[in-house]
Parts: sequence; C-alpha cells; structure tokens
Amino acid sequence: MPRYTAPTQDVQFLLHEVLKIADRDIPGYSELDSEFTSAVLEEAGKIASQVLQPLNSVGDQGGCKYENGVVTTPTGFKDAFEQMKDGGWPGLDMPEEFGGQNMPYLMGTAVGEFFSAANQAFTMYQGLTHGAASAILAHGTDAQKATYLPNMVSCAWTGTMNLTEPHCGTDLGLMRTKAEPQEDGSYKITGQKIFISAGDHDLADNVIHLVLAKIPGGPEGIKGVSLFIVPKIMVDEDGALGTRNAVSVGKIEEKMGIHGNSTCVMNYDGATGYLLGQQHKGMRAMFTMMNEARLGVAMQGLAQAEAAYQNAVDYAKDRLQGRDVTGVKNPDGPADPLIVHPDIRRNLMAQKSFTEGARAFMLWGALLIDQSHRSNDAEAEGLISLLTPILKGFLTDKGYDMTVQAQQIYGGHGYIEEWGMSQFTRDARITMIYEGANGVQALDLVGRKLAQDGGKHVMGFFELVKSFCNEAGEISEGFKTQFIDPLKAASKDLQAAGMYFMQNGMKNPNHALAGSYDFMHLFGHVCLGLMWADIAKASQKALDSGTGDAAFYETKLATARYYMSRELPATALHLARIQSGADPVMALDPDAF
Amino acid sequence: MPRYTAPTQDVQFLLHEVLKIADRDIPGYSELDSEFTSAVLEEAGKIASQVLQPLNSVGDQGGCKYENGVVTTPTGFKDAFEQMKDGGWPGLDMPEEFGGQNMPYLMGTAVGEFFSAANQAFTMYQGLTHGAASAILAHGTDAQKATYLPNMVSCAWTGTMNLTEPHCGTDLGLMRTKAEPQEDGSYKITGQKIFISAGDHDLADNVIHLVLAKIPGGPEGIKGVSLFIVPKIMVDEDGALGTRNAVSVGKIEEKMGIHGNSTCVMNYDGATGYLLGQQHKGMRAMFTMMNEARLGVAMQGLAQAEAAYQNAVDYAKDRLQGRDVTGVKNPDGPADPLIVHPDIRRNLMAQKSFTEGARAFMLWGALLIDQSHRSNDAEAEGLISLLTPILKGFLTDKGYDMTVQAQQIYGGHGYIEEWGMSQFTRDARITMIYEGANGVQALDLVGRKLAQDGGKHVMGFFELVKSFCNEAGEISEGFKTQFIDPLKAASKDLQAAGMYFMQNGMKNPNHALAGSYDFMHLFGHVCLGLMWADIAKASQKALDSGTGDAAFYETKLATARYYMSRELPATALHLARIQSGADPVMALDPDAF
Repeated sequence: MPRYTAPTQDVQFLLHEVLKIADRDIPGYSELDSEFTSAVLEEAGKIASQVLQPLNSVGDQGGCKYENGVVTTPTGFKDAFEQMKDGGWPGLDMPEEFGGQNMPYLMGTAVGEFFSAANQAFTMYQGLTHGAASAILAHGTDAQKATYLPNMVSCAWTGTMNLTEPHCGTDLGLMRTKAEPQEDGSYKITGQKIFISAGDHDLADNVIHLVLAKIPGGPEGIKGVSLFIVPKIMVDEDGALGTRNAVSVGKIEEKMGIHGNSTCVMNYDGATGYLLGQQHKGMRAMFTMMNEARLGVAMQGLAQAEAAYQNAVDYAKDRLQGRDVTGVKNPDGPADPLIVHPDIRRNLMAQKSFTEGARAFMLWGALLIDQSHRSNDAEAEGLISLLTPILKGFLTDKGYDMTVQAQQIYGGHGYIEEWGMSQFTRDARITMIYEGANGVQALDLVGRKLAQDGGKHVMGFFELVKSFCNEAGEISEGFKTQFIDPLKAASKDLQAAGMYFMQNGMKNPNHALAGSYDFMHLFGHVCLGLMWADIAKASQKALDSGTGDAAFYETKLATARYYMSRELPATALHLARIQSGADPVMALDPDAF
Repeated sequence: MPRYTAPTQDVQFLLHEVLKIADRDIPGYSELDSEFTSAVLEEAGKIASQVLQPLNSVGDQGGCKYENGVVTTPTGFKDAFEQMKDGGWPGLDMPEEFGGQNMPYLMGTAVGEFFSAANQAFTMYQGLTHGAASAILAHGTDAQKATYLPNMVSCAWTGTMNLTEPHCGTDLGLMRTKAEPQEDGSYKITGQKIFISAGDHDLADNVIHLVLAKIPGGPEGIKGVSLFIVPKIMVDEDGALGTRNAVSVGKIEEKMGIHGNSTCVMNYDGATGYLLGQQHKGMRAMFTMMNEARLGVAMQGLAQAEAAYQNAVDYAKDRLQGRDVTGVKNPDGPADPLIVHPDIRRNLMAQKSFTEGARAFMLWGALLIDQSHRSNDAEAEGLISLLTPILKGFLTDKGYDMTVQAQQIYGGHGYIEEWGMSQFTRDARITMIYEGANGVQALDLVGRKLAQDGGKHVMGFFELVKSFCNEAGEISEGFKTQFIDPLKAASKDLQAAGMYFMQNGMKNPNHALAGSYDFMHLFGHVCLGLMWADIAKASQKALDSGTGDAAFYETKLATARYYMSRELPATALHLARIQSGADPVMALDPDAF
C-alpha cells in the first residue's frame, strides 16, 4: 500500500527562504512566522498521512454508490470529513466573520497540496465548497452571505459548480438550462447538468449548487448566462433546513479515477434558485470560482506527482534488481537496489525536479493571489491572471506524466491495482481535463492573457526574469553559468515565441493558435527554470552563510542543475514547433483524417 | 461506444508502394501480390471490426473471473475465439506441416495490428500461443514439435511465457523456481510465477506453459536457467489429453487494464516439465519468444494509438463547440465541429503522423524478420536485433501518449468509462511495461545492441539512411528541403549521440546509460523520419505518374511535412540531454531522494 509524508521541510524552505514571506508587506503575512507556519504544516501533514491517505485506496476500490436516490461515499469518508471539519481546515483561509481562520490563501494552498496528495477524491468535497463559498463571498448579497457562508465555511454544507451540459462544456454559450423569474424574486431552474463533482453525497446536511442558466429573453450565447444559488434542501429565513428542492441526481458516472468523489448528473426540474450577482453576468461570477478552481487543479497535478514520487523512491530503494555497472553497491544482498541504475535515476530526478519546482511555482502563484486580494495590487493581479492557465495546464500535464513515470519504476507491479500506483495516474488524469481542458488553457493564454492590458503582464514577467538574472548573476561566475545562463536562454526562446505570434498572428490567428499548446509548455518551463534559479540562489546563500542543513541545500543545488541541463532545454523544441506555424498543422481537409 | 475500422488502404500502400514487397527476393513473398494481400487484409479487417471490437468494452467491464479453481473469460470471448480458429488466423504465418498457412511474418504482423487494435486483451491469448509455438519450433525436438505444435498452431491449445517471480522480473538470475530431474528424463517443476498473461482460461482444452527454472547444481544466476514445457493437462504419447498436471492458478490479478486477459499467479507444485532446448540455455530459447513478443508489444502500442485516434477523429468531427476564428464553418449549426480548432488539429496530426509512421516502421521490422528467417540474411538479422528495443520502447511510449491525446479530445467524456476512451489508455499502459520495461529496452539498445558485432549494425543503419538521402534528395530541390534535410539533421543528432557515448562511456558507463532512454527516443524519431521520407518519396512518385488516388498521396505528403517540422526536431532535445552526461542525473546520494 502506498504511503504519503507531507513535504513540510520543503514548504518551510520555500515560504521563508525563497518567497521570504516575512519581508512581504501583505496583510496577514506578519503572523506567518516560521514557528507558526511549521505548526500548521505539521498538523495538516498528520491529518493528510494518518486520516486521508489510508482512505485513498479504500475510496478508489469502493467508490461512491447511488441507490434509491441516495448517494453514499466510501467507507470512512464521513468520519474523516468530520475530523477535517473539527480541525477547522475547510475554513482555514476564509474570513473570521463567517467562521474561518482568516489565514492567507498561501497557507490554504500549502496545506491543500498535502490533503490532495493524500486523497484527491476526498479533498474535492471541501475544495468545491471553498470555490462556491468564494463566489458567494465575492458576488453575494449580505443576506446570501449570512444565509450560506457560515455553514459552507465550516463544511456543514458543501458546494458545487454546475456548468457542463451534455452537449456543451467549453462552449457554454450553447447552454440550455433555463431560469424563469418568479414573483417572489426567485427563479425556477430547469435543465440537466453533467460531470458535477461532489454533486450529492452523505457527508453534509445540505449541498449548495451554483448553477449557470439562461433567463429567457436575455442576450444570445454566453452573454445571456446568469449564475444561481440552488440549495439541495431549502433554507428557511431563520437559516433552518426546510423542504427538499426540485433537484435530483440522475446517476453517478463510472470514471477512470477519483472514484471516491461522486460525479453526478444533476437534474433541475423547476428547482428554486436565487440570482448570484447580476443578471446575464453569470460568467463573471463563475470565473471567481473558475480561477480559484484552476489553481486548485494545478495543485492537484503537483500533489499526485508528489505522492507517486514518494512511493517510487521507496520502491527504487527497496527493490533489488541487477547490479550497478560501476561497482556492486549491496554486496551482502542478491542484487543492488533499483536506485543505483542511471535510467532509474533519470526517472526519479525528472519527478523530483518537477515536484519541487512546481511547488515553488504554486506557492508563488498563491502569494500573487494574496498580493492581489489582500493588498489590491493590480500588477500582481495581472501577473497571476497570466500565469493561471500555465499553472493549470503545465502542472497537470507534467504532473500526470510524472505519475506515469513513477508507475514505471514499479514495472509490472505498477500495473496491478494492489500496489496503488495505477490510482495515482488514473486520478491525476482528470486534472488535465476538468476546469477547462488544457487545450482551452493554452487558448486562454495565447488568445486572451498575452495581449491583456496591451501585453503589460507578459512584459512585466520578462522584466521580472531580467532583473532576477541581473541580480543573481552577480553571485558568482559559476552560479551564473549553471543557473542564470540557461534561464536567460529559455526566456529568450519564450520572447522569440511571443514575437513570432505578434508578427504572424495578425495575418492569420492560426499561426498563434497552432502554437498555443507549445507556448504554454514553453512558458511553464521558463517559470520552473525561474523557480529553480531562485531556489538555487536561496540555497547558495544559506550554504555561504554556513547555517542550517547543508545537505538539504546541496541537494537543492544538484536538483536545480538537473533541471537546467535536462529539462529546461525543452524550450528550444517548443520554439521550433511554434515557429513552424500553422501550415503543417492545418494543411489537411477534415475529410482527410 | 468506440468503433474500429482496419486501415487496409494504408497497409496496402505500405506493402506495395513503400516496402515494394514484390521486388523483394524473400521466399514466400512472390505470392503476396496486391490482390492477395488485399483479400487477406479485408477479411482480417472484418473479423477485427465485427467480431473482436464489439467485445472490447465487454471484456474491460466484465473482466475475467476466478472461482473454484476455474478461470472464465468475459462473455463472448469463447465464441469469438472459435471464429478466429475457424478462420485459421492464429496459424497464418506458421508452417504448413503443423497446420499453418505459411505466410510471411509480415502478413501476420499486418493483420495482428488489426486484431490488437480491435481487442488487445483478447488477441493476447493467441499472441502468447504464437510466441510459445515459435520457441518450440525453434528449439524443440521433433517429438515435442509433433506433440504440441499442431494443437498450438490451431489454438486448440494455447501457450504462455513464465518468467517473472514475485522478487524478480528484469533480473531473472535471482529466479527461485527449480526443476528437479526425474528418472524418465522429465523434471519436477516447483515454484511460483507471477504476471502470467493468459495463464489459464476457458478458451482451449489445454494450456502449454513455457517455464524458466533452475536445475539444482547448475551455474549461478542467469547462466543456470533452463526452459521447460509444462502442460496444464498431461499429453499422452498418442497425443490425447490425460490427467491434470500439478500446476494451478493462485489468483488472477486486478489490473489497470487488459481486464479481458487473465493475468495469473501460477503455482508449480512438482509439476511435470520437459526440457526445451539445452540445459542452462533457457534464456537463449526464451529470447526466441521474447524478441517476437517485443515486436508484438510494439505493434500493440501502435494498435491502441490507431484505435484511439479513429475515435478521436470521429468525435472531433461530430462534437460542435466554439467557432473557427478564421470564419464560421458550420453556419447552419449552433457551433463548428472541434476539428476546426488549431489545437485540436495539432493533437490529431500528432496522432495521425505517429500511427502511420509507426505502421511503416513496424512492417519494415517484420520484413527484416522475414529476410532474416526466410533468406538467412545476417545483415537483416543484425539490423532487426538493433531495432527491436527501439520498436518496443518508442512505439509503446508514443503509442500510450497518443491514447492519452485521443482521450483529451473528448474532454470530460474521455474520463467517463461509458465512452471507451479511458480503456485505450489503460490497456496501452501495459505495453510500456511488459516484455521488458522500456527502461530495460533502452539499456538493451545502448548497453548491448549498439556495440554488437563491433557496431556493425548501427553503422549499417547510418549507411542505409545516407544512401536513401542521396537517392531521394535527387527527386527535386523542394523534396530535399522538405523531407531529406530534416532527416539528415536528425540522423546527424543520432550520430553525435553515439559519438558522445563512445567518447565518454568508456571512462564511465553511466555517461552512456544516463542517456539511454533519450537515445532510444532519438533513434525512434530518426526511424520514423526515415519512414516518412520514404512514404513521401512513394507518394511523390505516384503523384508524378498521375496514377491512383491523388488525395491519398497529397494527404501523405502533408502528414510527412507535419512530422518533419513538428516531431522530428525532438532529436535536438534528446541530444542535448544526452550530452549533459551522467553528472546531473547521478549527483545525489540515494538518501537525498
């Protein structure tokens, strides 16, 4: 059976030595001293490894059941959910006035990785609730906030997002679910929504659905979509639960993975709903959830890679097979452990350099969210808006790849469900799809975010890389050669790709769009290169000062060297693909496929 | 539900216009005129799409059952197996004297792709039988051949390969299963074997296990391993079935995929076995099966990619979502089909260029097998020995990636089992693992095959590429720029990688081994580049002569252009990774992971 240990030391290093959160003038950050964050992380790590992780394969094998109109979650989920609630984890970064602990989003992200790594399917129940609560917090009336938030922040009630319909996912303008206004100001919601994660279950007393629907007579397409609060059980004016609303589960889906989460078809048969935000501005309100959800999914990609990696390392150290060609390492045993073999090392280094670099990228992204929300920093807001599709697309594509690599270390045992490695890949696979398939992330990046505000944010990113390189390049000639020069070269590839889009996308937008996926990956590599250079800088500084755990910092430097020499050169390939333009991609008639 | 249509036109094109089999002086090839191969392919295609494909998801969902000592295959498998036997498909390329049709291996490979694409789990029952029969054919005594082959060629009895034990897979020297000589010349086999595909089932009257075991007192390690024939049910001297042998199923494994194939733990409790080939030369005999099995697995990688691709194309043409940014393509519909979008095209072109290039590579490999076996051509034997790990490793890694890409086209529907796209990835995943995990293929390539016979075969490959480029470069300047120059550049990268190994691998073999996986992929790309250039040459020739289906040839040229500009540049990345050497990969202590 797999195990999971929360990487608390790495998070502490990133928070305090790389991101240097104590130096940041962000409201709420002054409380985040090293002792405090360590206590929070250790406690979260315990819950993750002791409560959530043991239920991961239970959830996978047992799955959710739908019988007689009732959805039940796997054995043990309800108890574990109670423990999460008792610990106040769901409301960690929610406002105190609604029962939360008001910590920064950064801390929610840090512990969220642990929970997701230990049990993705389980953690989605509270993750979706968090997203729905955030949307109500941002767009709800005071009465709506008072009615729903206290119970959602505590997870006494959970939440969902209802976007997809059988015939439309990405193209929500095609939506058919309708919302008919009633005399009392409410709406009657009628339609079918599919792929509703945590759509119904036995973990909470109520489920608050956020549902996109069209009010008849509104604008065509996506501009006529509004967002509604539709409780599973009606809530009286005094906040007490009343009668059942006209929303029901059609079925739960059989999926490749995340079996512990109930993915429902939801039928709305004239269900009572309440407008959230403005009429026909539903997409704007939904994007509060979507952006948060995209970062949450990026985190899941990283989290599954980390969990799979830990178990791959265990197996590589434990399994005796073959001998080190440079000399026997385990003379008393019948063979050497797998980890002596260079190709096993290549595989493990790919995983290690990804998860640690991705964690830095993820926490930096969370910090930008805090800067944006807590400090009203428009620059940070623009930057995280640019980086969100990269975080989502790159971290989930790579995260999935890493689970596949980890599974490969196990050979045949990786393919047998008993060992648990298959679950990591099956669970991770959904992260490339939900909250906007990764092709849609690439489209968002190249079609919208690059040019946003006149290209200001991408220029800001290049400035940031440049000033980092200038400063860190001064550390030493060796440091510059090993870490800064590769980052500069990668950043240059990214700029050349952007230039190609500018020069050719005007003539034919397909020249940009055919390169969008490669651009997302190119950008992702530059971000991870920046992270590794920054990690190397912090590590070098610590070593130079002679403080702390030297082996830890030396390991960071070696891993950074690996990333620079083995992963970052991928930028040149992505650039070459982008610069080949649309013609090779678009040459064929649809009939020729 | 997915569908499958055998790509008969493509195979015909490859056989007759690219490989030009009529011009080959290989015994048995003279019968392979276009009309004949077309008839065989069409018939095989019908069985694949009408009989095997409808059972693919049945097998996945129902799986095999093990109850009261009896293994049952999924509903419908037994009837389908009878139809395969009635059609004589299992013995297509087996000798006539044992009931086969004596066609070349090339034809077995061509139709094998169709069967595997339609139903991999099902086709493995006969595939493993084929491998076991080949080993008996190559190493058995006349009596053994007479006893077993007629029933195995017809698949009245099936076969298995028994290598892996719980504590050893790759490192078979650690094997514990023992074979004690008996007075009558037989052996008593005792031990446990795991991951035995088609280990037991209800499709045939007997199962002939080929089992690796150690004769006590023999040499240590891999040099003391012998191969034995161990029938499930004893075979009397007159060929009739007798009593049950002391071999039994311990359990069947729960796997990520290929649920329709029974993967068994096999317990040998003093089972009667008969030496196949020489004492202590078991690995040599087993490699007859292994090499064939590796080519068979390469074909499975291609086959799953093809099946997934066909369904991805269907969905991309059918699903309406969003609008073409360069102008509406489906004005009467609510949206345009997915296939108008450049990023969907990128994905489909990656799949199409892989499957068609891989098919050419696969059939070329099969032709080399025929040249080697039927014409005793040592050069061909050396070349296919070199190319086997590349076929296995590259085609299954890429084949798996392509199933993931195909699944991605479906968005959320790709993650739901109902649509069948998940099965393609789950089934394809095993191909990267069994018959030698792909890291072991890379090790075989770099550690053994490159230097085999003084590097003669790899030099032969470079000569072959060079003379092809010289000849095809004469077609026209445009042809040279589009197809030959990229191939030359890729081949140069491959040579530089080989040079790096030569110059650095002597000092430290890890400099070669740390680059082995990248080398396998680099080599794979050069092979596919060569295939696409050759396909382009044949297509250009057909277009110039004005015969045949011009649209077909134009599509081939466009797909070749795609491969050259978007996929082949990966060679430079692999070279850069290889040239970074072992240091970044091997820097860490095992404890630092």
